[in-house]
Amino acid sequence: MQDNIMTGLLNIKYPIIQAPMAGGVTTSELVAEVSNSGGLGMIGAGYMTPKQMREQIREIKQLTANPFGINLFVPNEFGATEEEVRDANDILNPIREQLNIQSKDNLELPEYNRVVETFIEQIEVILEEKVPVCSFTFGIPSTEVIDKIKQHNIILIGTATTVREAVEIEKTGMDMVVVQGSEAGGHRGNFIYGHQESLIGLMSLIPQVVDHVTIPVIAAGGIMDGRGFMASICLGAAGVQMGTAFLTCIESGAPNVHKEAILQADEDETVLTRAFSGKWARGINNKFISEIQHKEESLPDFPVQNTLTQEIRKASLTQNNPDFMSLWSGQSPRLAKNQTVGKLMKNIISEAEKIKNKI
Amino acid sequence: MQDNIMTGLLNIKYPIIQAPMAGGVTTSELVAEVSNSGGLGMIGAGYMTPKQMREQIREIKQLTANPFGINLFVPNEFGATEEEVRDANDILNPIREQLNIQSKDNLELPEYNRVVETFIEQIEVILEEKVPVCSFTFGIPSTEVIDKIKQHNIILIGTATTVREAVEIEKTGMDMVVVQGSEAGGHRGNFIYGHQESLIGLMSLIPQVVDHVTIPVIAAGGIMDGRGFMASICLGAAGVQMGTAFLTCIESGAPNVHKEAILQADEDETVLTRAFSGKWARGINNKFISEIQHKEESLPDFPVQNTLTQEIRKASLTQNNPDFMSLWSGQSPRLAKNQTVGKLMKNIISEAEKIKNKI
Repeated sequence: MQDNIMTGLLNIKYPIIQAPMAGGVTTSELVAEVSNSGGLGMIGAGYMTPKQMREQIREIKQLTANPFGINLFVPNEFGATEEEVRDANDILNPIREQLNIQSKDNLELPEYNRVVETFIEQIEVILEEKVPVCSFTFGIPSTEVIDKIKQHNIILIGTATTVREAVEIEKTGMDMVVVQGSEAGGHRGNFIYGHQESLIGLMSLIPQVVDHVTIPVIAAGGIMDGRGFMASICLGAAGVQMGTAFLTCIESGAPNVHKEAILQADEDETVLTRAFSGKWARGINNKFISEIQHKEESLPDFPVQNTLTQEIRKASLTQNNPDFMSLWSGQSPRLAKNQTVGKLMKNIISEAEKIKNKI
Repeated sequence: MQDNIMTGLLNIKYPIIQAPMAGGVTTSELVAEVSNSGGLGMIGAGYMTPKQMREQIREIKQLTANPFGINLFVPNEFGATEEEVRDANDILNPIREQLNIQSKDNLELPEYNRVVETFIEQIEVILEEKVPVCSFTFGIPSTEVIDKIKQHNIILIGTATTVREAVEIEKTGMDMVVVQGSEAGGHRGNFIYGHQESLIGLMSLIPQVVDHVTIPVIAAGGIMDGRGFMASICLGAAGVQMGTAFLTCIESGAPNVHKEAILQADEDETVLTRAFSGKWARGINNKFISEIQHKEESLPDFPVQNTLTQEIRKASLTQNNPDFMSLWSGQSPRLAKNQTVGKLMKNIISEAEKIKNKI
């Protein structure tokens, strides 16, 4: 693998980032193993408390001497009227019944001010613990926050879904940009454009972004092996960020029922949905998505809907039932394998070398 | 460019097919110039009469000694009740008024039997004129038709949007398969799967198809230059089919107002719509699409809606008004250039060589 600007800046061997999947997937073993294998392991800290973050950061430092990173959700303004919450609960209550859990009528809903406070506390932990790399999704933090992180020599990575979003990220002085294609699993990272306009396939998106920014572009979405890795490099990306490929690895904290759903899925079985969290995300189609689809556009914003569905997702998992949990996956589930991170990394690099010699 | 199975079978120099865009884009000059430049020029004959086809085939034979191809639409069963047509006309009449054209109430609508008859006549012309390559979209023709064409040693190419569609195409004995990603402009080629399920980005789609068929896979959708070409090869494709990149070429028959719309568009300005033809297709968003969007799902099937909108599209063109014509484009309009076919082909090959030497 020749040197490139991305591996130089991140001080890693291979330009491969493990996507910071939130919600328990990025165990310390997963993150450390990716970094130990020459890639960049990332903590998906979007839903974590500052305390949880600090504990995991310290744990990972025990498991690897190599750089690793962390990802935060930039708070987006949101609001939900009592009526919206009641309507959403009216849809969710029959599903709660199916899972034998109590109907919730007076849940503690998130408040924007509190979300912002937590974000600031999360940033403090990153600075104090000197995490080498910090990436953001769902937007761009304030200039104040960016400048503060840069003063600590932490590498900053933004997430974009269109050319203009990438250009805005470069303007803030961030060091790199992850460019998320429509193939990607999990939450969509669009923050300037609407949902439909920002669904652009990587084959189109990467070269158009590369022509308009000077910072390294990291391709994300549907990349699973040496083929996708080399294709991304040909399109002009400096490297890749891979989610689903790491999610089904042995070291990942995703529940087995989630891993199995991906391992058994075909490429046409993923859908985009707001049903779980209030933000569009791609996952394997299931009963929950189908039952809520007709109301999809009118559900409360993220993270309100996410809070409303929390108990349902938890019960579905406890009952080992894939029908009512989020089964995030990109569009390449046929390429997923249940293997160790070390094996996955080795396969990517050796396949990439083979392709180089062949073309 | 090393030899590959696709160039060998097609007897061409570079594994690059000019997409058979229907509706007047594929002039004889465009098709011949692509073939003269070492690619495969293709006639988009979907809307042509057998007579028009024969004339153009003979004209192209005068302009190139190299192989070229032709594409037909496989007839799909359709029907439209009087009520559906009346409802569609109720939506279209105010638009006709804006363009100062007469409201149509007793249009001659297509009939399935007649469409099938024309298809059989089109096949006869291809056999008689010994066109070297024939590709199909919107489905798979009958075994009878396929066997007949194969007996004439004409290379057959199918179009797929999912793994299963590609597998079905291979089973029929066709020689190659064009795999259309969600990035692609113009009509969607899905014929087994529904619209949403078949919107898969090329980064995901190509390797998953390649793993399940043995015939050469040709990548289509958003590919505009040497970067997309090399990326497709890395993903396992034998070559590429490019539409939008050829559409804006000087030799293309697309109206200037269409070329200009693409040349000025950004990557987020294309949408998927049934408004023009009754079949989902990707083009630059305009007034016609926006005005009809709310009724999109209930419009008559292809080709009924196509016939209903014919005069509108024609008047919009005559009036040099991009608001009411179909401005088909893939998701990479920022990469489009108004240049000669020769220049485009040369640039793809030289950029591909540069990438090979660099990676």
